[in-house]
Amino acid sequence: MTLNPNYEAIGKAFTEQYYLMFDNPATRHQLQALYNADQSLMSFEGQQMQGAVKIMEKIQTLTFQKIAHLITAVDCQPMFDGGILINVLGQLKTDDDPPQSFVQNFVLKPSADSFFIQHDAFRLVLHNVAA
Amino acid sequence: MTLNPNYEAIGKAFTEQYYLMFDNPATRHQLQALYNADQSLMSFEGQQMQGAVKIMEKIQTLTFQKIAHLITAVDCQPMFDGGILINVLGQLKTDDDPPQSFVQNFVLKPSADSFFIQHDAFRLVLHNVAA
Repeated sequence: MTLNPNYEAIGKAFTEQYYLMFDNPATRHQLQALYNADQSLMSFEGQQMQGAVKIMEKIQTLTFQKIAHLITAVDCQPMFDGGILINVLGQLKTDDDPPQSFVQNFVLKPSADSFFIQHDAFRLVLHNVAA
Repeated sequence: MTLNPNYEAIGKAFTEQYYLMFDNPATRHQLQALYNADQSLMSFEGQQMQGAVKIMEKIQTLTFQKIAHLITAVDCQPMFDGGILINVLGQLKTDDDPPQSFVQNFVLKPSADSFFIQHDAFRLVLHNVAA
């Protein structure tokens, strides 16, 4: 399979759609359809999960009333199996807490006419005091 | 090919070795051997390069006398082609500047008895003032 020439448009559209669905409590449960039953791996703050059900269980245990992901930068690369590598840097705003920087990495894998999320890794960036 | 059961040890050892080589001016040029002549893609602060030569040209243009990468967190995931996905969060210290947070993502691709870096994406995390 060759590199997908539309990797950048697909990666950016995916990213916007993902956080729209995540940030809206009415659509958050639909994220499950973006993961594969078995072949999806997630790292969340160092904790690892496999498969759509376990990943959604993790997402649903996050406790906040309101959440907003603000995207700062999205770097997309085409992969040699037709997939798309996406690195997101952003700010996360939950409830009335101050915004926190986060990073999230996705690997989209081609499947039929679409893609699923094969890899997902999320970390908050703690703002250390300068040494 | 199946998931590499040693993904975590390999990913962490790679990460340590990469930054040791990078931070030492005497060994930095050896990084070129970790990239493939054609099938390596890099995003550096949003700028994209392909191939070991172009990637090393970029690395060599970075201007600092001293550099130290301090690793805060490394998340590794096995990939379904035998590769390894690595997400690094850390602090970068150049010369006498205050430390800056950075994120770097690597995809290691199996090749003969070893791996090469197929994807590399680097970003500094700007510490925005809370909105």
